[in-house]
Amino acid sequence: MPQTISVASYIFKRLQQNGVNHVFGVPGDYMLKALDHVKASGVKWTGTCNELNAGYAADGYARTNGLGALFTTYGVGELSAINAVAGSYAERVPVVHVVGLPRREHLERGKLVHHSLMRTHVARLKQPLVFSGMHESVTGARFDALSRDSQQIIDSVDDVIRRAIVQRVPTYIPLPSDMVAEQVQAQQLSVPLRALYQRQEDSSEDVANDLLRLLYSAKAPLLLVDRAGTDHPESLRQLLNDFIRCSGIPTLTMPSGASMVDHNIKNYYGVHAGPAGQIDTMPYVNACDLVVSFSCMHSDTQTLGWSVVPPRVKTVAISRSRLRFFNKNGGQSYEISVERMLAKMIAKLDTHRLAKPDTTSLGNFRKVMPQLITSLDDPIDQTSFYLRLNSYLRPHDTILLANATPILGGRDFVLPDKSCRVIASGLWFSIGHVLPAALGAAMAQQRSPQSSEEVRSGRVVLLDGDGSFQVTAQELSTIIHQRLNVTIFIINNDGYAYERLIHNPDEDYHDIAPWDYLSLPATFGAAQAIKKAEELGEDYSVDTYTMRTWKDLEAFLSDDTFDNGFGGKAKRGLKLIDVKMAKTDVPEKFKAVFASAGKNLD
Amino acid sequence: MPQTISVASYIFKRLQQNGVNHVFGVPGDYMLKALDHVKASGVKWTGTCNELNAGYAADGYARTNGLGALFTTYGVGELSAINAVAGSYAERVPVVHVVGLPRREHLERGKLVHHSLMRTHVARLKQPLVFSGMHESVTGARFDALSRDSQQIIDSVDDVIRRAIVQRVPTYIPLPSDMVAEQVQAQQLSVPLRALYQRQEDSSEDVANDLLRLLYSAKAPLLLVDRAGTDHPESLRQLLNDFIRCSGIPTLTMPSGASMVDHNIKNYYGVHAGPAGQIDTMPYVNACDLVVSFSCMHSDTQTLGWSVVPPRVKTVAISRSRLRFFNKNGGQSYEISVERMLAKMIAKLDTHRLAKPDTTSLGNFRKVMPQLITSLDDPIDQTSFYLRLNSYLRPHDTILLANATPILGGRDFVLPDKSCRVIASGLWFSIGHVLPAALGAAMAQQRSPQSSEEVRSGRVVLLDGDGSFQVTAQELSTIIHQRLNVTIFIINNDGYAYERLIHNPDEDYHDIAPWDYLSLPATFGAAQAIKKAEELGEDYSVDTYTMRTWKDLEAFLSDDTFDNGFGGKAKRGLKLIDVKMAKTDVPEKFKAVFASAGKNLD
Repeated sequence: MPQTISVASYIFKRLQQNGVNHVFGVPGDYMLKALDHVKASGVKWTGTCNELNAGYAADGYARTNGLGALFTTYGVGELSAINAVAGSYAERVPVVHVVGLPRREHLERGKLVHHSLMRTHVARLKQPLVFSGMHESVTGARFDALSRDSQQIIDSVDDVIRRAIVQRVPTYIPLPSDMVAEQVQAQQLSVPLRALYQRQEDSSEDVANDLLRLLYSAKAPLLLVDRAGTDHPESLRQLLNDFIRCSGIPTLTMPSGASMVDHNIKNYYGVHAGPAGQIDTMPYVNACDLVVSFSCMHSDTQTLGWSVVPPRVKTVAISRSRLRFFNKNGGQSYEISVERMLAKMIAKLDTHRLAKPDTTSLGNFRKVMPQLITSLDDPIDQTSFYLRLNSYLRPHDTILLANATPILGGRDFVLPDKSCRVIASGLWFSIGHVLPAALGAAMAQQRSPQSSEEVRSGRVVLLDGDGSFQVTAQELSTIIHQRLNVTIFIINNDGYAYERLIHNPDEDYHDIAPWDYLSLPATFGAAQAIKKAEELGEDYSVDTYTMRTWKDLEAFLSDDTFDNGFGGKAKRGLKLIDVKMAKTDVPEKFKAVFASAGKNLD
Repeated sequence: MPQTISVASYIFKRLQQNGVNHVFGVPGDYMLKALDHVKASGVKWTGTCNELNAGYAADGYARTNGLGALFTTYGVGELSAINAVAGSYAERVPVVHVVGLPRREHLERGKLVHHSLMRTHVARLKQPLVFSGMHESVTGARFDALSRDSQQIIDSVDDVIRRAIVQRVPTYIPLPSDMVAEQVQAQQLSVPLRALYQRQEDSSEDVANDLLRLLYSAKAPLLLVDRAGTDHPESLRQLLNDFIRCSGIPTLTMPSGASMVDHNIKNYYGVHAGPAGQIDTMPYVNACDLVVSFSCMHSDTQTLGWSVVPPRVKTVAISRSRLRFFNKNGGQSYEISVERMLAKMIAKLDTHRLAKPDTTSLGNFRKVMPQLITSLDDPIDQTSFYLRLNSYLRPHDTILLANATPILGGRDFVLPDKSCRVIASGLWFSIGHVLPAALGAAMAQQRSPQSSEEVRSGRVVLLDGDGSFQVTAQELSTIIHQRLNVTIFIINNDGYAYERLIHNPDEDYHDIAPWDYLSLPATFGAAQAIKKAEELGEDYSVDTYTMRTWKDLEAFLSDDTFDNGFGGKAKRGLKLIDVKMAKTDVPEKFKAVFASAGKNLD
């Protein structure tokens, strides 16, 4: 290793060491010289059509891989991406946002560089860093962009990347253009990031004992699992599932955490949506006397306006680094390592001391059947579509559910085995998120050197809405350009159905422009991608389908060439399916969701 | 008029009274109930595909109409739009951003509503308003979202809209969902906004005299004109042009202000780009002894890295509301009304006392000729394309120049008459801005009740880049859906040419996915729009063209059906032209621009 290295190379090498093999973004001139260091650091630059989409792609990548990164330019670029960064923060997804800034001297002197604001109400010296300040608001990250102390710079880089990984939050690295090539000590790179920071003392072991005691004394305990900040590493998920399996404690997930628990665990009873679920989970939740809530996002949207949130006084709330016992006086909070706590609990667990509560009311979500089809020529409806589509899912699939009707319908999926991952929002619910997130997820799963051949063969299956698809549609071109293995169902019901069902369904503000979605792959360069694949000796196809009736769906599911999952004989590539649904079709069960949403506006 | 009115209706009626006939945005549930008041207030809701594009559309609308508005939802929506809002702020474009928020009670109690962040580092009570705070950073606007005092609420609405109009900045109105229908006094609406605020005393008249004295004593004065905050109202532009015309003082514009001055005024000498212009304006600028600089954006990008900015000591800087005399000791600043000052100067001007400087070196930009074409089969090149396209421009056209090579090439347009408007960025330079801005400009020009038949018949002509087009491409569907009269040239050179020319042209981070641009109108519902027009008895067509050679351009310019401007016999509608250019083709003159940009990164 050379004695010194450039700051830009230091950043991207550190990211690469921690699993970031792809960085998403849009080039801008303040970034150009740093971009040369991306490739040199062994990281693949993945250009997206715009910065918001880069942010969403990095989010999808991080949800799949454990850490993601995006790289944008000062002002225009970083602000275009900031909604995605805020979403990663809301849902505890670790994304490092590197931003190319003007030269430090220009920032210090408040020069009127392009992509800056004209000065008025903000103090002159702070003005050039106003965008960094806005990122601080949604990430909590601070980084002195004006530093000239090279040790401080690399320490800050290490701190910010570590903070993203440990606290599961996005962080921010400002990189002035004149800092890019500045030489810093390379030595520090040979020390792994985790080794640089002392393990903090925490209460994991004591708390494990306390929690076990509470569980032993409960007559009807419940584990309620979500994913905020805890969907990585795989070893944590494994520990959690081991505990659920060996304890036998009845377990539910929040809708956004549906893939955190292996669906074949007997004491897993599906998604907790109360009366809006296929099986009403409220009778059990109301009767239980202890809820251990694991990284839950109790937003109004996924709790029927908080009506299905268990009472605090019987809740123990666990996040990645904190456990809180609630009681009438507010409760007590402890710093923990959830991994160490779970390991301890598994080791010490005495299952004989656990109650065997009556779980009859929780039923068996695996046996919920779709409505009988009277005619195969009947139109596809939302009530049965997801239940019937379930047979399409395969091990190692990553399934993304749009912030549209799919996030409701997709709750009902019974996942084939533990290696399926569902990506669904639990709090931020930004429309348009999932198409670029699918790009990021596919890149992480299918192109990471860390993935096994089996995992890489998994498909990314996206269930998008038509309104949602239009928000970020151009990223389909990047999926094609990168020749990723993605299946996209567009639930096409002529507008923003989710909004339509909340208020005044006939108003035209719910409408969108009518697109011919299936012509997009050709527009976006499908022929060139196929040709490129041929040149490289790769397998890549682009196929489009229209579905209106159950017959269309049946034909589709029985088509060997369509099932392009691991072990199938199908072609790899993009499948784009336009699923025509009626404008205001919605499962009966979900009417309560829309009614609750409407009520919360008054 | 009824005695009371809802807060939402108050807001949209006030906007409507001040020229906002269209509001852009994407619906979200926190906005739904307010959306019913938009239509009821006589304002037309114009849904865009995403919020960034809504922000750009509102910006284009405001640049054309004097005031624009966008309406988005809490968190996800307002943050997606914030880059556009910041751009409006940087370039002094008045856009009112109305944001639908959760109920005040939920905000006060810090409830975990959807589109919010989970609490951590920000104090609990402030957290729900963190996004409003971010808007304050880029607009300076404050508005108490939690107010329950109805008089305070409508006073704030009035203050914020007035501030946008007077100070030419974007402002922000938070509208919690439970405030929407709250009744307020309607009486205040009958008082025009301007009448509610006392005219402030200012120094306009004294300063007019001082400035005239300075001009009389100058041997070689120069007026240097840009547009930050001063492109409205039309009466201000008229006063400025009257002064330029009757004073005979040599006048130049900054690139972004090219349409602020009538191109037929004899003493107007074109765009000041120094050695990067067709005629080098530096010899005159260096020799002059007084520069009156009018609302200039002296960003690095439009000043060759500040090398063509006149020295401060000989500058008088005028903005809409302030005039500053510079001298060795810093200078003095006065509050003025630029309209009153200009009117006074015109009335008192004694042209005999003005020097008649030698302007030989400024040449005649109207007579710059394109290079001779040796063969009509030669490929179109950047050096001559804009000069040759000039004959396509018509009175009442609005021309938008992308933040890509068009913003350089478009500097050379000689505008047909005073009623042409060029929209080009001078400081923010956000890629992707112009396509949605064209939507907004077209809506303002072609659909406003205030526009005369003649003005409404004007075309919107957009010169976009291919990389730029991809950023916001879906808004083409809204242009089609709204059946607007827009001509779009995509300068297609396989990537981010502007960046490519600054640094390492062969690197693949400059590349973009290959799109078949001309197939997009069909994908985006052109057939449905044409059918709708037929049903309404309107004239609407969608035509696409490819241009590779000068022959293609000639055929195009001589095609009567292509010239769809006022008085022509052409069809109204969308024209989309794919102009193929070589990857690294750039006029010799602009090499200096890229060299300067590259130098400023080190």
